[in-house]
Amino acid sequence: MAKTDHAEHLAMPQDDRRRTSVVDTPAFAEHGPLVDHKVPQAEVVQQEPDLAWSRIRHYLREPFSEFFGVFILILFGDGVVAQVVLSNGEKGDYQSISWGWGLGVMLGVYSSGISGAHLNPAVTLANCIFRKFPWRKFPGYMLAQVLGAMAASAIVYANYKSAIDLFEGGPGIRTVGLETSTAGIFCTYPAPFMTKTGQFFSEFIASTLLMFLIYALKDDGNIGAGPLTPLCLFFVIFGIGACFGWETGYAINLARDFGPRLVSYMIGYGHEVWSAGGYYFWVPMVSPFCGCVFGGWLYDTFLFTGESPINTPYMGLQRLVQPKRSVWSNTYGDNKV
Amino acid sequence: MAKTDHAEHLAMPQDDRRRTSVVDTPAFAEHGPLVDHKVPQAEVVQQEPDLAWSRIRHYLREPFSEFFGVFILILFGDGVVAQVVLSNGEKGDYQSISWGWGLGVMLGVYSSGISGAHLNPAVTLANCIFRKFPWRKFPGYMLAQVLGAMAASAIVYANYKSAIDLFEGGPGIRTVGLETSTAGIFCTYPAPFMTKTGQFFSEFIASTLLMFLIYALKDDGNIGAGPLTPLCLFFVIFGIGACFGWETGYAINLARDFGPRLVSYMIGYGHEVWSAGGYYFWVPMVSPFCGCVFGGWLYDTFLFTGESPINTPYMGLQRLVQPKRSVWSNTYGDNKV
Amino acid sequence: MAKTDHAEHLAMPQDDRRRTSVVDTPAFAEHGPLVDHKVPQAEVVQQEPDLAWSRIRHYLREPFSEFFGVFILILFGDGVVAQVVLSNGEKGDYQSISWGWGLGVMLGVYSSGISGAHLNPAVTLANCIFRKFPWRKFPGYMLAQVLGAMAASAIVYANYKSAIDLFEGGPGIRTVGLETSTAGIFCTYPAPFMTKTGQFFSEFIASTLLMFLIYALKDDGNIGAGPLTPLCLFFVIFGIGACFGWETGYAINLARDFGPRLVSYMIGYGHEVWSAGGYYFWVPMVSPFCGCVFGGWLYDTFLFTGESPINTPYMGLQRLVQPKRSVWSNTYGDNKV
Amino acid sequence: MAKTDHAEHLAMPQDDRRRTSVVDTPAFAEHGPLVDHKVPQAEVVQQEPDLAWSRIRHYLREPFSEFFGVFILILFGDGVVAQVVLSNGEKGDYQSISWGWGLGVMLGVYSSGISGAHLNPAVTLANCIFRKFPWRKFPGYMLAQVLGAMAASAIVYANYKSAIDLFEGGPGIRTVGLETSTAGIFCTYPAPFMTKTGQFFSEFIASTLLMFLIYALKDDGNIGAGPLTPLCLFFVIFGIGACFGWETGYAINLARDFGPRLVSYMIGYGHEVWSAGGYYFWVPMVSPFCGCVFGGWLYDTFLFTGESPINTPYMGLQRLVQPKRSVWSNTYGDNKV
Repeated sequence: MAKTDHAEHLAMPQDDRRRTSVVDTPAFAEHGPLVDHKVPQAEVVQQEPDLAWSRIRHYLREPFSEFFGVFILILFGDGVVAQVVLSNGEKGDYQSISWGWGLGVMLGVYSSGISGAHLNPAVTLANCIFRKFPWRKFPGYMLAQVLGAMAASAIVYANYKSAIDLFEGGPGIRTVGLETSTAGIFCTYPAPFMTKTGQFFSEFIASTLLMFLIYALKDDGNIGAGPLTPLCLFFVIFGIGACFGWETGYAINLARDFGPRLVSYMIGYGHEVWSAGGYYFWVPMVSPFCGCVFGGWLYDTFLFTGESPINTPYMGLQRLVQPKRSVWSNTYGDNKV
Repeated sequence: MAKTDHAEHLAMPQDDRRRTSVVDTPAFAEHGPLVDHKVPQAEVVQQEPDLAWSRIRHYLREPFSEFFGVFILILFGDGVVAQVVLSNGEKGDYQSISWGWGLGVMLGVYSSGISGAHLNPAVTLANCIFRKFPWRKFPGYMLAQVLGAMAASAIVYANYKSAIDLFEGGPGIRTVGLETSTAGIFCTYPAPFMTKTGQFFSEFIASTLLMFLIYALKDDGNIGAGPLTPLCLFFVIFGIGACFGWETGYAINLARDFGPRLVSYMIGYGHEVWSAGGYYFWVPMVSPFCGCVFGGWLYDTFLFTGESPINTPYMGLQRLVQPKRSVWSNTYGDNKV
Repeated sequence: MAKTDHAEHLAMPQDDRRRTSVVDTPAFAEHGPLVDHKVPQAEVVQQEPDLAWSRIRHYLREPFSEFFGVFILILFGDGVVAQVVLSNGEKGDYQSISWGWGLGVMLGVYSSGISGAHLNPAVTLANCIFRKFPWRKFPGYMLAQVLGAMAASAIVYANYKSAIDLFEGGPGIRTVGLETSTAGIFCTYPAPFMTKTGQFFSEFIASTLLMFLIYALKDDGNIGAGPLTPLCLFFVIFGIGACFGWETGYAINLARDFGPRLVSYMIGYGHEVWSAGGYYFWVPMVSPFCGCVFGGWLYDTFLFTGESPINTPYMGLQRLVQPKRSVWSNTYGDNKV
Repeated sequence: MAKTDHAEHLAMPQDDRRRTSVVDTPAFAEHGPLVDHKVPQAEVVQQEPDLAWSRIRHYLREPFSEFFGVFILILFGDGVVAQVVLSNGEKGDYQSISWGWGLGVMLGVYSSGISGAHLNPAVTLANCIFRKFPWRKFPGYMLAQVLGAMAASAIVYANYKSAIDLFEGGPGIRTVGLETSTAGIFCTYPAPFMTKTGQFFSEFIASTLLMFLIYALKDDGNIGAGPLTPLCLFFVIFGIGACFGWETGYAINLARDFGPRLVSYMIGYGHEVWSAGGYYFWVPMVSPFCGCVFGGWLYDTFLFTGESPINTPYMGLQRLVQPKRSVWSNTYGDNKV
């Protein structure tokens, strides 16, 4: 009908203008809407002068985005621990650390909307399973996240080098686990009384909470945080740090923990970065994946009414048995399972 | 008129899109609008494949929602107390506790929009009295809230078991009211100088404040917090904790106090969980109901101009004398008294 | 033109729906828009059953609103000082006090949108001068504000009576200015090293800042905080407390200081509540009026482009020379000077 | 086409109304949109009575706006340091200082939307380079920013004069770098262990972070903070203070550091305000410019897809080789390079 066409014609640009000008945060949705959002971005690039760098960047825009998101996160996160530890608590306390990590995530999310602001391989994994995020992107995201964390922790080290020398007792002294050790600036080490099970369980709960709450905040069928999502993530991370942050240091993120740990090993903190806490290093690499998947499953099973494998016959497992191109790619074909 | 039809046709989908995509929080309203909001949800479920679990979940969606809301609340709330107490204040202080409970409520609200995010039997009661929330739902809500609190406190216990053993002085030692006691992690115990009247009064004031402010934040005839409501509730809870939290620990919630108290009794903290503070345990069970009803009455009497028994002849008491189906149910019949 | 009519027809209900449903805070504007906002409220009351109480309340709705706004403010504000002082800093510190007053103002504003949320006679005065708030309302507002503060401080006293007895050293002992004194819970006393000029100046700066920032936050020609205004006021009050709160305790409000001071005198704190600090009590009664008027003048002179006496020939002083009814009333007549 | 005209006709006033009434913050954009935004402001002034002051103010509105923005910033920022230092940490701690500077920036931004809320000459420079802010405005902005900082620090000094006398040990004693020195209230001095390279690097990182995050928050192609931008800047400044604030005091702003330093020299703190820290004073004058330009370059190169020299052939350098009027002015001519 002509009237309908007219209505659509009227409605479209208005909707478009509202979306970009007011408070919509389309980029934070990892599923359908994100894909739609990227199409106009691609068009923008085509309208730009045909520069070599623009083309390269367009191809790498998602890894760049994840890189800088994690970069910002670790810059604030490792930075605040460095300041608190090295100043002997004069320029901050445990509260500051909760602030630093919380706002690191918040501002990292604001920096990486182009890629959906995962900032965490475990979140990417859960999105692959529950939100149809293309599996083929998983390795690239994870690599970018780890590299971003490594770059940021190296910069934190460079910035606080003199203070670390002073704190450790001399240039080049780098130790783990002593009173004057500074390895804890970069990655997490568990409290001494923890068993291996307790370590795993603590990281598991924190990761479950993280993923459950991310899905709650982004669910329009629930209240939904909308444009307040990054601010709410500040509270989520602050809360996890204040409530479950003591025993294992709430890594809840392979990139956040493994990347800086590798850097601290390269800097010269020695083999203890791996062996400390009874070879604790693998716990924050494995447990967040389990926790985030469980948290996503919990939310989708009990509260989510949108499109999810949980709300699909046979839990959508035939998606794995009969993989279509759409499982791997969001570029061609239909996005329905 | 054709023009009017045209206008409606144009207006409707636009309105619809705005409602879901921007910042509306329909689910947080416990009265009329919530009902409207649920109808489309039911339709969504019908469009989904006809799975057994989807049908069960649809029937239980409100108890599930309250369960997880309180679950998140207690996970953060009891978790932060555990971390502060067990680390001897090294990993947090009283400020952290205010943060933890505040953000626990905020994130619990975000998780339980489907059921209206009461998280507290006393809030449910006040909504039944002042906002036409169906009375028949009261028992189910209360049960779900208590069970959510029990589940969360059990998980907090499991997570901090080693640290509790260390703090109490050995595995299996669980005490109430000593220097090394950990019962205060789970539920509230009054300050020693409080009389029974003082205990009741302190909880009463805090509950009154809570309900008064919830109704203020949700009143569109006032400023109204709209999509900022969960964030504002963070400030409400933070404030109650900072200003009226010392004397009785601001339970202001039967589910938050009785559920974890029962769990701590089951764990083995002994009969003292009931007898401590002069059998204090019943105060946070009774006083919040009185306070919340009074707070709701105060707001409706002096400031609320919307639909309320206060603004109804004979204070709407004929609703109790001549109960219609609508008093008990929001599914059939008209919703007018 | 028919097309224009059509457009208006289309536009009007949409605009209306957006205004009420999304994030508009009309009630927080003390000038023109507030008046428009109240007209529909009056209509709502007429549609309600014709109850005696509804009629009384409609007449007193603005004083009630200011009463409860200040009531909430002082309940949190005096409450947090009581908790911090009486628990010897165990249940809070100076940070908590900044939080308590900040969120007290924020939640008080949310409670008193019906009257424009002044919460402070000096703000009411500045609005009379710069924003055409009707002068005839000034006495009623001020009275309601003082009464609200008195009621709240009495409740704080009742709640913390046992703890005050304990802190002062015995029941009935109430002192000012000693180590164990508790008069500072209720109203402000200056630091001992302050001269009278310094006291006045400190209150003056803080009040100037307050009014300047209120006008900045509410100026649509500037960025404008819109629905975030109450939250921003939290930051304003927090900031004044953290930056200019030490020397005189940042009363910046006759109602906040004089009301509770009177209550503390009635309770039995003795003549010292007036004589302490060299009869300091009049400074927070006078200085905020000077500061707020100066702050409003500063903003309007240098930044405000809207309707203000500053932007009017002869600074609008003929308004005082030739008073029209509109100067005193917002009910009848035109609102133009 | 007539239909398109109709659509535009319909769309325009709606869009206009939404822009002003809801949550748009056009004034915070330093490029194109800001210019559009000012045109109606100019029209408003013309509709006002033709007052001499209105004309003068209209001409100086941008310097006034920057002046008051920095004025608010330094009032809170220097004020909080004064309160914490002079009260020996009784009325605040390092956390308070992070709060004070963070909310100083936030409220300063709200006060200075008319000029784009730069508050920092380095931000102005980056906007000139990357966002086509007219170069001719740079000197005026910088002057206004420095004068605003000077005025505010003089007021902080006046307010805390008695307390400074007490702290330094007598009236007129003003020292730098001792235990009882108060020069650190006004401007930053580096930690003693820092090398000159370390000082520069620390300021450089902090400034890079600042500019990178400002551009991220304001990029609609990213998530974009929209009306939450001032609140997010609170978190940015809080984070820089908590994570990179120890070593050099995070000046990251020539106006914030040089202005108050000059005032403290004029007050009588002596030549040490320049010579302290190995003539440190030039570092926070130079390093923020380098850091902010690098931060802007980083964001535009890797993440920004909008109009930027980075996305222009030859990086837009022909703009410098063949300067058009538009490079210097936003009043006449086209704004395209």
